[in-house]
Amino acid sequence: MLKNPDNLQKKLGLHFTDPELFKVALTHRSFGANNNERLEFLGDSILGFVIARKLYDIYPEASEGVLSRLRASLVNEGSLAELARKLQLGDYLLLGTGELKSGGFRRDSILSDALEAIMGALYLDQGMTSCQQWIEQLFTEKLGGLSLESWRKDPKTQLQELMQARKLELPDYTLITMSGLAHEQTFKVKCTVSVLAEACTGTGGTRKKAEQDAAEKMLQLLKDSL
Amino acid sequence: MLKNPDNLQKKLGLHFTDPELFKVALTHRSFGANNNERLEFLGDSILGFVIARKLYDIYPEASEGVLSRLRASLVNEGSLAELARKLQLGDYLLLGTGELKSGGFRRDSILSDALEAIMGALYLDQGMTSCQQWIEQLFTEKLGGLSLESWRKDPKTQLQELMQARKLELPDYTLITMSGLAHEQTFKVKCTVSVLAEACTGTGGTRKKAEQDAAEKMLQLLKDSL
Repeated sequence: MLKNPDNLQKKLGLHFTDPELFKVALTHRSFGANNNERLEFLGDSILGFVIARKLYDIYPEASEGVLSRLRASLVNEGSLAELARKLQLGDYLLLGTGELKSGGFRRDSILSDALEAIMGALYLDQGMTSCQQWIEQLFTEKLGGLSLESWRKDPKTQLQELMQARKLELPDYTLITMSGLAHEQTFKVKCTVSVLAEACTGTGGTRKKAEQDAAEKMLQLLKDSL
Repeated sequence: MLKNPDNLQKKLGLHFTDPELFKVALTHRSFGANNNERLEFLGDSILGFVIARKLYDIYPEASEGVLSRLRASLVNEGSLAELARKLQLGDYLLLGTGELKSGGFRRDSILSDALEAIMGALYLDQGMTSCQQWIEQLFTEKLGGLSLESWRKDPKTQLQELMQARKLELPDYTLITMSGLAHEQTFKVKCTVSVLAEACTGTGGTRKKAEQDAAEKMLQLLKDSL
């Protein structure tokens, strides 16, 4: 049996002035005409703003490109569905019989849309400030788990772009040695660039990792020799 | 000589508490590190929300798909650059010498980004309500010029999708006559579908228009014969 939406409100820490609006947010289009699609449109735009604003604050040094990548990593169907599952949203969704039978309450798109629709409904019910606070709280863990470092471009890409920007030849990577048994091999790679006589060597468990390591050292060397 | 940003503020009906923030919004990345890219990221998300919210209100009957199409028609580089040109934003932009020489102040992307950056700066300076009002005012004319009708799918597309949805053969269009002198020709086209014996004819100044006319009549005929 479908669970009572009031219990979901409690679980979400919400108290809608208009509980009907909350119910619409939980209604998939397969259930009827008065469904959550319009609320999802609204909620999606609110979520985009709230996360943009938060990232803008947390990372005063991050470029627009980094901010965009960070936001995309937080706001996507998979990550929203994950949040929706933690809140057991699926147990409260109103779905048509077809969707019910095919397990629609477990589908990423349906869960993610419903979560965005709740945001839209909350905004209509209680205004931007409350909605913003609720969304920020919902994303606390995900925001905390972000690392700016992990969203920097990898060293090989950085080095390549640096060379391109200065209209220099692209870096060259050569495998020097490969040692160890299968599954435990160590790769050693040499990286050279046309502007420096010195080469950098990197090591790693795969050729790619060794190249990244070499590129990172080369970036440092270039920085030091400026 | 570059015009004084204070004059632009007046023209825009704005009065920034922090005029420095307004200046950053006008600064292209070619001019220096303290440029408008981050503000543009923020402004873009605010604009998306403000227009979504407005459309949600104005068109209580529109589906999520229609709302998305309407928003995309309002919020895009071309339409923002058009607004920026009306405000003569280009005269106030801070550009690097390269961009200046190549006429960057006339480029759609640079104009559109600067306008979004102003929105971001305004939000930071004066909060969401003021920013929302300013954006809505800026878009008054564009919002007024929207027609829900014009964002419905055209009749040929509608008819085709209807046939596809019912797994029927696609409609057939045949040119019957073409009359009149060049540049003043009239086309007459016949549309048939496999489920109806009756055909519909449409007329128009181009073959395509005649086909749309015929498709529209066919849609009506199908509706009437249900």
